[in-house]
Order: sequence, then C-alpha cells, then structure tokens
Amino acid sequence: MNEERLTDDLLAQLRELAETGEWAKSVALLTSLHPADLADVALALDDDERRNLLHYLPTDVTAQTLEFVDEDGLAAIAGSVGTSALFAILNEVPDEIATDVLQQLEPERRREVLAALDHEEQVAALLEYPDESAGGIMRSGFVSLNEALPVEQAIETLRRLRPPSDRAYYLYTVDDDRRLRGVVSVRDLIVAVPGTALSEIAERDIHAVVVDLDQEEVARTLQRYNLLAIPVVDADGRLVGATTADDVIDVLAEEATEDMYRMVGLDEDERVFSPVRTSVRRRLPWMLVNLVWAFGAAAIVSLFDDTLARFTLLAALMPVVAGQGGNAGAQTATIAVRSIALGDLDVRDVFRATRKEIVVGLANGVAIGVVAGAAVYAWDRNVVLSAVLAGALAGSIALATLLGVIIPLGLKWRGVDPALAANIFVTGATDILSFVLFLGLAALVIERIA
Amino acid sequence: MNEERLTDDLLAQLRELAETGEWAKSVALLTSLHPADLADVALALDDDERRNLLHYLPTDVTAQTLEFVDEDGLAAIAGSVGTSALFAILNEVPDEIATDVLQQLEPERRREVLAALDHEEQVAALLEYPDESAGGIMRSGFVSLNEALPVEQAIETLRRLRPPSDRAYYLYTVDDDRRLRGVVSVRDLIVAVPGTALSEIAERDIHAVVVDLDQEEVARTLQRYNLLAIPVVDADGRLVGATTADDVIDVLAEEATEDMYRMVGLDEDERVFSPVRTSVRRRLPWMLVNLVWAFGAAAIVSLFDDTLARFTLLAALMPVVAGQGGNAGAQTATIAVRSIALGDLDVRDVFRATRKEIVVGLANGVAIGVVAGAAVYAWDRNVVLSAVLAGALAGSIALATLLGVIIPLGLKWRGVDPALAANIFVTGATDILSFVLFLGLAALVIERIA
Repeated sequence: MNEERLTDDLLAQLRELAETGEWAKSVALLTSLHPADLADVALALDDDERRNLLHYLPTDVTAQTLEFVDEDGLAAIAGSVGTSALFAILNEVPDEIATDVLQQLEPERRREVLAALDHEEQVAALLEYPDESAGGIMRSGFVSLNEALPVEQAIETLRRLRPPSDRAYYLYTVDDDRRLRGVVSVRDLIVAVPGTALSEIAERDIHAVVVDLDQEEVARTLQRYNLLAIPVVDADGRLVGATTADDVIDVLAEEATEDMYRMVGLDEDERVFSPVRTSVRRRLPWMLVNLVWAFGAAAIVSLFDDTLARFTLLAALMPVVAGQGGNAGAQTATIAVRSIALGDLDVRDVFRATRKEIVVGLANGVAIGVVAGAAVYAWDRNVVLSAVLAGALAGSIALATLLGVIIPLGLKWRGVDPALAANIFVTGATDILSFVLFLGLAALVIERIA
Repeated sequence: MNEERLTDDLLAQLRELAETGEWAKSVALLTSLHPADLADVALALDDDERRNLLHYLPTDVTAQTLEFVDEDGLAAIAGSVGTSALFAILNEVPDEIATDVLQQLEPERRREVLAALDHEEQVAALLEYPDESAGGIMRSGFVSLNEALPVEQAIETLRRLRPPSDRAYYLYTVDDDRRLRGVVSVRDLIVAVPGTALSEIAERDIHAVVVDLDQEEVARTLQRYNLLAIPVVDADGRLVGATTADDVIDVLAEEATEDMYRMVGLDEDERVFSPVRTSVRRRLPWMLVNLVWAFGAAAIVSLFDDTLARFTLLAALMPVVAGQGGNAGAQTATIAVRSIALGDLDVRDVFRATRKEIVVGLANGVAIGVVAGAAVYAWDRNVVLSAVLAGALAGSIALATLLGVIIPLGLKWRGVDPALAANIFVTGATDILSFVLFLGLAALVIERIA
C-alpha cells in the first residue's frame, strides 16, 4: 500500500517534469529509488511516457530494474527502448535475465539482439531450456571450485573472481570432470584451518536437481529441505547453475495463483487490471463450457415436468440440494488440489483418501439432511417432502464429496492439471446428480407429497 | 512422490525391526537419513511407535529434525518424549525452534521445560512475540558487528564466533547504540582491502522490518526486493533477528492455502488426511451458513409459485441462470482476492476496479445471454422465453461480476479477510439475485410465454 502511494506521487511529479521537459530532474528522481520501486513507476507510465523516460535514463539504471520485473513488464520495457539501447542494457545484466528479456521479443528482434550480446553463446544456451524447467529459472555464474583446492587458495580465487554477492554465499565443489560433489559456505571457508582441502569441509549431502526438472518440483525440493539455493546439474552431473530461494518464492506464488484461477476456470495470466478485452476473452470460454453443463442439468430437470407442475415447492428446493452438493464438492476438491500441489496427496493414496471422504461426506450429508428436513417440515408440515429433501441432500453431499477427491486424483493420474477439476467437472456433475436424486425421489412418492 | 515411497518402505522396515526389538538397527537406519526425511518417517508412525523410537534415538538427531516439522508435527514429537529428554533436545536447537516447540505445550509443561533451558531468557523473550508477526517467524543469533570495525577484525570475530552457516551469509552492521546501519555479505569481507572499515563496504539501502509487523507483510517485503534475508529490528531500530527466505516460503505457502480454503469456507488447518471427526467439524459450519442462504433463495422462488406451475420449463432453466451468475461471481472474486493478497489491488482502487468489472460483466453477460437465448429458442421455439432467459443471464452475470469485486474490497476495508467473500457472500447473493431477475421477468410476461 505504501509502495502504491509512493508510485502515485512519483507519477504526478514525473508528469509535471515531462511537461516542462526537465528530464535531468526526472532522471535524478528515479535514480534515487530502489530498482524495485523504479520498476513499478516505469511500468505504471503509459507507453509514450515510458519511452521518453527510458531514453534519458542511464542504461545501467534501467538494467538494474529488470531483476524486479515480471514477464509482461520485461516485454513493456524492451518495447520502450531502441535496439542499440537494448544491447547496452542486456550487456549489463546477468545472463539469465538477458534470457528472460529475449524470450519476450519477436523472433527477428531476438536474433538481432542476441547476436550483439557479449555473452551471446551463454545466453543462447540458456534460451534452449524450457521456461518452466530448472534450467529456465536457474541463475548461472555460480562459483565452482575443484574440491582438491586448499581453503586459502579458494579464498584467493574468490578475491580474484569477485563474483556478485548474491551468487557467492554458497560455493560448489566439483571433481576433475567438473561433476558436482559438494557445497561449502563462504563462512566455512573463513573458519577452516589453512591447508584444509575443500573436500574435507564440503557438505556432501546436497540436493541437486537436473536441468530439465519441472520448476514446481525444483521449488518443492528447495522448500522441503529449507535451502537458500539448490544447484542445477546436467545429465552428466556437471554444475550448470543454481536456483535461489527468492526465485522459488516467485515460482510458488505463480503456481498458487495458477491453481486458484484454474479452479474457477480462469487463465493464469489475468490480473485485476488486465484490459477489458483480455478479461472477457479469458473468462468467456469457461462460462460457455459451463453453459453446456447447465443445459444438461436443465434437460434433466425438464424430464420431471409433471412432478414439478403438481408440486412447485420442489422447484424452490432444487437450488438447496444443488447448492449444498456443489459446496461439498468444491470444499473437497480444494483440499485435494492443494494437497496434491503441496505433495501431501498422490494417485497412490486414492483408496485411503476415498475411504476417508466417503465417511466425511456421509456424516456431513446426514447432518445437513436432518437440519434441512426439519426446516422444510417447519415450513410446509409435509413429512414425506422433508424425508425426500433429507435423503436427496445426504446422497448429493456424499456423492459430491466423493467426486471432489476422485476427480482431481483421476486428472493427476492422466497427467492433466488437477486444478481444472473443481468447477468444470465436480460442480457440473454434482448439479446433475443432485437434480436426479431430488426430483427422482420426489417423483417416486409424488402421490404422498402433493 | 519419491519421498512418500521412501517413507512407506522405511515404515515397513522399522515395524519389522521393532517387533524383534532390534532398536540399534532402527537407530542406524534413521540416523543415515536427511533430517527432513527422518521427520517424515517419525510423523508417519503411530503415537506408541514414535514414543518407542524416539526413546532410542540420540537427542541431537531428534533435535535436527525439528527444523523441518510443522506445528502439528512439533506437538507430536514433543508429546512423544519425556520432559528430561525434551530439555536435552531443546538445548540443541536454535532459540526460535525451541520457542516454536514450547508454543505447542500445555502451559504447565511449558513453564517446566522453559525453566530448565540453557537459553531460558532468550527463549522467554521470543515467546512474547505473536505467532504471526516478524518476531514470531524470525531467527535469532545473526551476527552483528560494529560498523567501525576493520574487515580483518570482522573476519577474526567470525572465526572466533563460528556462527552456524545458515546465519552467516549476511553480517549486519550496527552503530555504537546497536542500531542497525547496514549489511555486509561474507563475500564482501573477503574481497575487501584490509584496513577498510565495515561502514565503507556495507550496503546502506536495507529493508528492515519492525518486530511486530504481520508475517504476510514481512513476506511481501522480502519478495518485492528479492532478498534472501530481511533484518528485524525493535522499536528503537536495534537488530533483534532476521527472517530468511526459506521461512518466508513457508509463510507464503500457508497464506495461499488459507486463502484458497477460506474461499470455499474451509478451516486453514484441515489436511487431506486430517481425522474424519476434524474434517466433519470443520466443513459443517460453513455448510450450515450456506443452508440459510439456500433457504432464502428457496423462499424467493416459492413467491413465483403460480408462474412456475403455469410453465415448468422455467424451473428447468433456473439452474442455468444461477449457475452462470455464480461462476461469474466466483471468477471475479478469485481474481480480486488473489490480487489483494499479492498487493496488486487495494481499497483505494475500488472505483477503477468497479468500472472495469462492470464493463467485463456486461460484455460476458450479453455474450452468454445471446448464446443461451439461441439455445433455448432451438429447444422450445419460444421467442419470449428466449428473451427472458437472455436478459436474466446478462443481468445476473453483470451483477455477480460487480459483487465479485466490491464484496472482497468491502471486507478488506472493514478489516475482514477478503477470502471469506467468495462463497459466503458472492455466491449466496448471486443465487438470490438470479432467481429474482429470471422469475421476475418471466412473471411479467407469463401471458406471452405459457
């Protein structure tokens, strides 16, 4: 919230300065900010304003902001500077950030910019890794040292290389074939007795990940072992980079958003202030899918035409049954999807999970059935109707609870994202089952209700 | 998944060894594991098995597992060892982990254990901080050095103190009053020219948080500035600890789960394999709240008794309108809740957000209305009915979209968790509005429909 206020005030000031053409003052103002705050301001400007401003901002200042910007932001910044300015900026950022920027460019511009980079070869190699793999999120440029080296020589090497601080809190040790063997913290280097070989002080129980592992698995490993960085190796066990906890935080936030969104049929890229056209285009498809389910449910209900005509209170109670079933299903599906994402639930647990949810579903179903049956009796003094409602609720809630755990696990088993389950399958199927149960039971005993 | 397989195999082996009383072998087996994996095994055992095993496990091995265990796990482990064993274990863990364990104990046992700890005073101080504040999640024991110290003396101090590796990748610099002034990475110490004072190489632009700040804000600050650790200071600006990225990962995962769960009316503590009784007790209350809404909706529908009796296809189409409205509301509420959690949306954006969502809601509403109207015309060849359905859908979707953004922002403004919005308020209100719109419109033109 404070950051937002800050941005608004700055925007007003910058616009004033732009009108009078006082660019030097704008630059001084922006350069005094933390790069993360500067990035926010730059992205809050409209395209023309940003283009003007970046034209005057020193390339190293622009370069520093890129670490704090998401993919859309990188595209916006890259689109606001000329190609030669972009070379200059990308030559000042770590290879993996240059890679992230290049991924946002049209193929032709990407080739042109890539060819002009000092680290063309390294960046081209990073571009090969899939976006959501260990290779796609790792940082390169970590320090690796031969494990035979004595600690004082390791310290000398570090003094000579002067690696950036954020890549030098872990040093990786490798054997003569450059295969990863262990990890040494800089603190261990300092406290070790001179003459000690790195191999003697290195931690050997390391959790490396292979370069093509999915980013979610990388994040989960780092999270499980409370690590601040996790080394990434190629198929031969050679160190190619490392992923740090701050990047894993971004991955986990992104994956959580994706799951939440998919559960209600949303595209993961939508943000609250995405353009209207984007929002409409992204929400409509799922609403259309849902419309098909809804008409399916309507067709089922229309089969009970006569029953409904004889006793319209049934129509009023339909939403009660469907709503309760839908909720029970959504609750269970949410628990199942989140548990799968956190690694607490897997396909092999299907029997154990199903057994538990059947019991929970029946218990909740009977409880809600009794309460709702009593409420309807109070309303209409109709014992048979109360019994039909109670039975339908118990059945609908129990079935929905069961579907809520089986469908996500089934999707996971088939390699589909379980988060798609919640609304598309569970709610749709539950609606139909609820109507069949409730109106079916009512039709059987309609003579004694109406 | 691999970890789970590992646990199952180990459990089988341990149970076999327990039957023949071969505890030495069990201990050897467990001690060879990573503490995070050992923790999983210990928690998968039943209470008696765990008690037996922990009795034979060396206290330092048990102590190492505690870092990898959540609150329920800490309670289970503390409950499986005698009080004197617990002293011994807690004397081997960092103060903040001892604090987390003590928080799980009954007040009487807590006092008894606390009084016997070597660091009684420090742990008692940590116990004062609220669980979900910066003080509650920080680690203590970070190294702070006077900024006037030359680098070679800082290195000497580090050699003498031998701080654990995981607290020594940042060194904090303080002034003569112990107020936090800057941060130095160990790598900077090594590469600096001897004789340089720490103040000359320290980074001054640091993002410290105050000890009583909410953990979610701490997490967001660390995330925003891509930090691996964030220093925590008291009201006078004195360093009291630091929170590291691995702990922030746990906070963010917990907050994401909490939001997802609250959106469907679940208690944040429920897990897929929580006991049945817990699951029932935690899901029922919200289902009962929802039952009240459902009966409200039923009462509304029953007002249109005559209309429904004259034309039962209306009953079949009711779920179409309510379902589509409910989805539109759930989609918008999900975006709003997640955007609020990620800091992208705030109460002050209410007009901008509302304006956007009105347009999106109308566009989606008209689109779905036209498609559904056409589908009903194909089904029943009734132009008036098609028009009523299309109009009700457009209105219901537009209203639900609007509620989906206004209700979460309203709750946030009133200091209530916006995640509670999605089902409790948005879906309930949308159902009722949908029925009023659809059946109300139908009643107005019933002569021309039936």
